Formats: sequence, C-alpha cells, structure tokens
Amino acid sequence: KFLAYYESVHPADIAAEIGEWEPEDLQKMCTYLSDEDLAEVLEQCDDDEREDIAGQVDDDRLVRLFEHMQKDDIADCIGLLPTARKKALMNRMTADDRRVIAKLLQYPEESAGGIMTTAYIALKETLSISQALQKIREIGPKTEVIETLYVINVHRQLVGTVDLRDLLAAPKDATVQSITDNDVISVHPEVDQEEVASLVAKYDLKSIPVVNARSAILGIITVDDIIDVIIDEYDEDILQMAGVSKEESIDTTLGESIRMRLPWLMINLATAFLASFTVKMFQSTIEQVVALSAVMTIVSGMGGNAGTQTMSILVRDLSHDEVHTKQAVRALIKEILLGIIDGASTGLVTAVIVYFMYGNFYLSLIVLLAMIGNLVIAGIFGLLIPLTLKKLNADPAIASSIFLTTATDVLGFFIFLGLATVFLQKLV
Amino acid sequence: KFLAYYESVHPADIAAEIGEWEPEDLQKMCTYLSDEDLAEVLEQCDDDEREDIAGQVDDDRLVRLFEHMQKDDIADCIGLLPTARKKALMNRMTADDRRVIAKLLQYPEESAGGIMTTAYIALKETLSISQALQKIREIGPKTEVIETLYVINVHRQLVGTVDLRDLLAAPKDATVQSITDNDVISVHPEVDQEEVASLVAKYDLKSIPVVNARSAILGIITVDDIIDVIIDEYDEDILQMAGVSKEESIDTTLGESIRMRLPWLMINLATAFLASFTVKMFQSTIEQVVALSAVMTIVSGMGGNAGTQTMSILVRDLSHDEVHTKQAVRALIKEILLGIIDGASTGLVTAVIVYFMYGNFYLSLIVLLAMIGNLVIAGIFGLLIPLTLKKLNADPAIASSIFLTTATDVLGFFIFLGLATVFLQKLV
Ligand SMILES: [Mg+2]
Ligand SMILES: [Mg+2]
Ligand SMILES: [Mg+2]
Ligand SMILES: [Mg+2]
Ligand SMILES: [Mg+2]
Ligand SMILES: [Mg+2]
Ligand SMILES: [Mg+2]
Ligand SMILES: [Mg+2]
Ligand SMILES: [Mg+2]
Ligand SMILES: [Mg+2]
Ligand SMILES: [Mg+2]
Ligand SMILES: [Mg+2]
Ligand SMILES: [Mg+2]
Repeated sequence: KFLAYYESVHPADIAAEIGEWEPEDLQKMCTYLSDEDLAEVLEQCDDDEREDIAGQVDDDRLVRLFEHMQKDDIADCIGLLPTARKKALMNRMTADDRRVIAKLLQYPEESAGGIMTTAYIALKETLSISQALQKIREIGPKTEVIETLYVINVHRQLVGTVDLRDLLAAPKDATVQSITDNDVISVHPEVDQEEVASLVAKYDLKSIPVVNARSAILGIITVDDIIDVIIDEYDEDILQMAGVSKEESIDTTLGESIRMRLPWLMINLATAFLASFTVKMFQSTIEQVVALSAVMTIVSGMGGNAGTQTMSILVRDLSHDEVHTKQAVRALIKEILLGIIDGASTGLVTAVIVYFMYGNFYLSLIVLLAMIGNLVIAGIFGLLIPLTLKKLNADPAIASSIFLTTATDVLGFFIFLGLATVFLQKLV
Repeated sequence: KFLAYYESVHPADIAAEIGEWEPEDLQKMCTYLSDEDLAEVLEQCDDDEREDIAGQVDDDRLVRLFEHMQKDDIADCIGLLPTARKKALMNRMTADDRRVIAKLLQYPEESAGGIMTTAYIALKETLSISQALQKIREIGPKTEVIETLYVINVHRQLVGTVDLRDLLAAPKDATVQSITDNDVISVHPEVDQEEVASLVAKYDLKSIPVVNARSAILGIITVDDIIDVIIDEYDEDILQMAGVSKEESIDTTLGESIRMRLPWLMINLATAFLASFTVKMFQSTIEQVVALSAVMTIVSGMGGNAGTQTMSILVRDLSHDEVHTKQAVRALIKEILLGIIDGASTGLVTAVIVYFMYGNFYLSLIVLLAMIGNLVIAGIFGLLIPLTLKKLNADPAIASSIFLTTATDVLGFFIFLGLATVFLQKLV
C-alpha cells in the first residue's frame, strides 16, 4: 500500500505534504523511498522537515542522499545539523566536495552566496567549439543549466557567456572566444537575495553568475531558487505588515505562536493606550455630549482604512524599487487632495446620517471636518511611513501598519474631540 | 547626449523608467532606439507604456518591431490596440504569423493560453538523434527554450520531453523516442495563470507545455513570464487585503485614485456605522461611566490587530494551497487557546494600567474579560474568513480585512460595553 503510494506521487508532492505527517509516516517514507526520490524530497521541503528527515536516517544514508543532490541544497541541509554531525558528514565526503560545501556554508543564508550552486559549466575562452561540446557532453548531466555557458579566462575570471544555440551552430574549429557575449550581469556573493531576484526578474535571466571581487566565478544561481526567494520575500512582506513572523504557518504550535505573536500585540497595546489617553483628555467634553463616543470611532476607523490603502500601494511600489523623489513629492500633493476629496465624500455621508441620528447640525459639521482632516493625515502618513522606513534601510513593510494606525487613531480622536470641545456650546 | 544614454542602458532599464517620462522623451526614445532595442522595451514594459509607445510609432515600424519580439508579447501588444489598427497590423503579417497571433489572442489574458508562447521546439518521436540535432541548430535561435525539447507523435500529441543533455550524449542513429521522458507535466490553455505558476514553482520547471483536450501541444510557458505572474498575483493580494486595485500605483492620477479607492471607503463606512450603532446602544451606560469611552477603543483595536495576524498567515498559506480540513480544525482550537492566552496577557497589562488610571477594580476586571473574549473572536474570524472566501471560490485576500474588523469592532464594543452594563452598579 505504501509502496504503491510512493510510486504514484512526485517527490515534490511528498515534500509539500510531510509537514502534517506523524513521525511514523515520515519514518516509513524514509524506508520505502529510493535514495534518488528521498534526496529530491529533501531538496524540495522546508527546513523543519529537513531536520526531521535527517533525524530519521543515519549518516551512511545521508551521504548517499547527498550524491543525488545539488551542492546548494546539500549545504542548506548540512547547515541545519548540529556541529558534531555536520563535521562527521563532511569528513565522509571527498576532499573536493568538502571544500565546496565548506565554502557555500560560509555565506549568509539569504545572500547570493547562500543560494548559489556550483553545478555550472565554465568554458575557457581558448577552447575550440568541438572541445567545448565535448566538455558539455561530459559534465552537462551533472549541471543545472546548459543553455547558458560561462566563459572564463586563464585567471578564472568571468569574461562572458555563450548561448548553447550559438555553440551548436558555430564551426567546429572556431574558438569559444569568438562567440562569447561579453555583456554579462553578475552579482557578488554578499548581495541580498532580494536584490538578486529583482535583477533576474527585470532582465528575464535564466541564471545569474556569482563572482568575487576580482571577477572570478564562484557559482551560479538558478531560476527555480529565485522563484523560491520571490515567494519567500513576498510572504515575509504580507506577514510583516501584520506583525507576524514569516516562520509562522497554520501548523505552528500554540507555544511558538504565542512566542512569535505576543510581543507584537504588546507593542500594539502601547499604541492603543496612546489613543486611549487622547480620548481621556477630552473626557469632560464626552461627559457633556455622550453621542461623541459613538461617532468618534467612525472618524478614527476611516482614517486607518484610507491610510492602509495608500501604504499598501507604497509597500508594493517600493518592493519594485519604483519610487523617485519627484514622484514622491507629486504623490504627496495627490494624497493630500485625495484626502480632502475622499474625506469630504465619506464625511458628507456620515454627516447626513449623524444628523438623522442625533439631530444636531454642529455635530454633523464637526464629523465632516474631522473626517477630511483625518483622511488627509492618513494619506500623508500612509505615504511617508514606508518611504521613511526605506530611507532608514528598514523593510518598508515591517511595522508600518502600527505607525499608521497610531497616527490615524490619535490624531483622528484629537481632531474630532478637539473640534467638539471648541463647539461645545452648540452641541450640548 | 541621448544617443549616449540609450547606448549605455539596457532596454529593461528603459522599460522600468518610461512610466515617469514626458511624451517628448518617449518620442525621442522611439526615434533613437534601434528596432531591436525598442522591441525589447516593448516586451518588458507595462500595458500603459505599451499603448504610449504604440501611439508614437506608425504601422510600418510596429510590424518591424514585431519581427524582433516573441509571439506571446506581440499578442499582448496587439490586444491593447483599437480594433481598426489591430486588423491593419494583422493584415501586414504573413499568413502563418497571423494565424498564430489570432489563436493566442483568443485566450483570456490571465490564463495559461494568455501567457504561452509558440517559440518552442517540437521533435517527432521517430526522428533520429542527428536529425533532431539538425532541427535544433536550425530553429533553436528562434526559440525561447532549448534545454527541454518537446516530443510529439504523428497526431502532434505531446508524448514527453527530451533533455538536451541526453540528446547530445546519445548515439547519432538512435531515435528521439529512445531518450524521451514520458513523465511530463502540462496544462490546458484555460487554466488560471496562478495555478500554472504554482506548478512551475512546486516542480522547479524551466518551462511548461500547454496542450489541448486531445493532448496536442499548443505552446509553452517560459519561466520569465511565470516570474511576472508570481509578482503580479502577490501584488494583487497585498493590495486587495487593503481594498486597493492592483492597477493603482504611486503614479496613478488623482481622478483614477478617487474612482478606485472611494467605493471601498464607502463600504468601510457602512461597517464603521455598524460599530458606531453598537456603541450607541450602550449610550446610557457610557453616560454614567464616561471612562468606558476611552477604554473601549483599546479592546476593539487589539481585536483587530490580533485577527489580522491570524488572517495574514491564512492568506499566505492558502496562496500556497496548504490548508486541509484536519489542519483547519486543529488551527481553530489553537486560535481559541491563543486568543485566551494572548487576551489574558494583554488584558492583564491593560487591567493594571486601567486600575492606576481610574482606580476601579471592576472596570479592570471587565477590560480583562472583554480582551480575552475579543481576542478569541479575532482568532476565530481571522481563521474562518479567508477559509470561507476560499470555499466560495473567492480570493481569500479580497476584502477579508473589512469582514474581520467589522467583527472585532462590533463584537469588541458589544462584549466590553455589555459587561459594563451588567456590572454598572460597581462602576458608578
Ligand atoms: Mg544555502
Ligand atoms: Mg530579505
Ligand atoms: Mg521579467
Ligand atoms: Mg538549487
Ligand atoms: Mg531549490
Ligand atoms: Mg521584504
Ligand atoms: Mg498574452
Ligand atoms: Mg488571478
Ligand atoms: Mg521550487
Ligand atoms: Mg514571453
Ligand atoms: Mg515577459
Ligand atoms: Mg490573488
Ligand atoms: Mg495569490
């Protein structure tokens, strides 16, 4: 029964599912799957499951699995293991492999070096086409990309790329140099993975070489790993805007969830008190006109909604590097006008309903003015908060919503209740 | 000066920038750029700018530009033009090209058919390796992918793929059939682009073939276009959660922004009134204990924050198709426990501060209970809203925040003010 299941599904499907499996099922899987398939599961699954699988198999098997895996994935797996086991495994590798893995392990996980692989084809520029073809036939099966070949000089410096199409069409005795394209986009190993991903997306690359300071090629990054980066970084943004760690998913345990979410809620609590203090400042006004307590929440809430619209657009645009100062200034003016117009529209509707509910013209007027004021504030903060975070080299997504709602709540209550205090004679 | 600029930058950089250019600069660019470079700008830029560029060049030039472009991009460009010009341009194409473009145009923009290209290599399974190599040499330069070759039978049905590595290594007189891998993942043209993207991401594909109901190959989708889909869909999710159209960016005009954002604010206003009515229900209670008006906003606000955390995790997990019923039930129990624990923690802090501010033990007790209640509600709604939207085949991201904050505001006020009414004798 198990065998039939494992034969019918793709390792990537197993990798996507094992997060919910019981330890026994995981153990059975490790027993039934071939080395090749288990290696692919290991390549495709998340870090948590990698640790679980590594825990189920002994060092012998793990080394055999590594033989079916790409170097970048081996490094990622080994990086998760306790130091003792890491060393034991490294010692069983060939000297060559050990050197490569040790090198890959030294780069930060989310850098170009951390996601690069060494399974590429480098051709010396002095090779003839037929020598190059011979080399591709030999090492091609062990590499991840063959459509683009990397051309190096005697110092192992990257001088350009050759398209396999051109190589297949070129006369056998020409040199690699004669068909090399010297315009090559490369990155240094310490570059953040997010930057690498946006280069690949922008220039429609199928792989991107990683070179060191003296232009020697160290590895390449393949597009499947770039897709993983793009997905990870977006997930992070979506979650960070809400104050959640990207490590958390629906399967996270209660204890972990508390540990990851409670600190954010405590920070939120501090800002909630700021808004509460603002309301308390006007307690004597509310005492005289209790209706204010029901209406003030409309003004503060709408400010939050409008500001979130602006902020989301900015976070999106900033993630594509699309905002210049000229644009920002123009956008600020637009947001102010938009706040006035949207504030007047929603404020007018609110004013009419409030008039029917409470029958006081001045209360309606105050709501209208406060709504305009708070939507202008929302637009300004919705624009400036992500821009400021970016300027400070922080992620524009992180915590932006907390700054925003603090501003729209505190200032929204302040404007509304402040106006009410000024017009108090007309309200009571 | 212009020439120097155009020669130094990559067309993809120009494409990323022209959104902010004045019409004169756009016109100059069209004049100075070579057909090849302008074609690449056209391939890389957004729909708005495609229309602008098409407006700057005449039909002659446009047809020449098309010669440098991939069929999928030509179809996308032509699809933007007014019918008369579309027809005029199609009539200038060769019969073959016209047929291909007409076919591509018939698929919805965001479907597999809408993003596929016809620039792939199909090999008949009966070809010999040397015939196959000859074909690759000939048509390879015109195709987007050569690492994977698509194998078809006499009925043009897709029977498998050949890896170019295997083809290069195989004996010249063997047949293509003998090295064909028959396990091939394909999609139908009407499949949503988001689904295609998740297949490519899951199985680490470099391209995916599109086949019709009788398995005949229609085209392939390349990974650069998949990356565009992933970025688009995430942008849509981030913006939809905030009630913004994915068409909007920092450069959108004031009029357009009003048209796109105001309807969402009006819907929000309706729900803000729901919360306001809830407060109004308890007006006589607030009248006797005005402090309630300052404290109630803490309870409602914290519910919104906690619910947003849960909801963001769900939206992210659902975008990866990762939620099963068993998980959902387990998660619901966890969220309830989490609501109790996080509610008790933040509620206790709040209760202590409130006690120091107002000196009333019962007010503190009420805040604690209401906080626990509202955080449980937040967890339940944060989980169930995206799941329900998904079940209804709606995008889990769309409008989920509005449902959530309506629940946490209305029920948050209700629980807190309701408890206050019950304990009213102890509060005054
Ligand atoms: Mg790594
Ligand atoms: Mg990052
Ligand atoms: Mg691209
Ligand atoms: Mg890899
Ligand atoms: Mg990978
Ligand atoms: Mg980020
Ligand atoms: Mg299309
Ligand atoms: Mg879609
Ligand atoms: Mg993948
Ligand atoms: Mg394309
Ligand atoms: Mg494209
Ligand atoms: Mg979506
Ligand atoms: Mg999505």
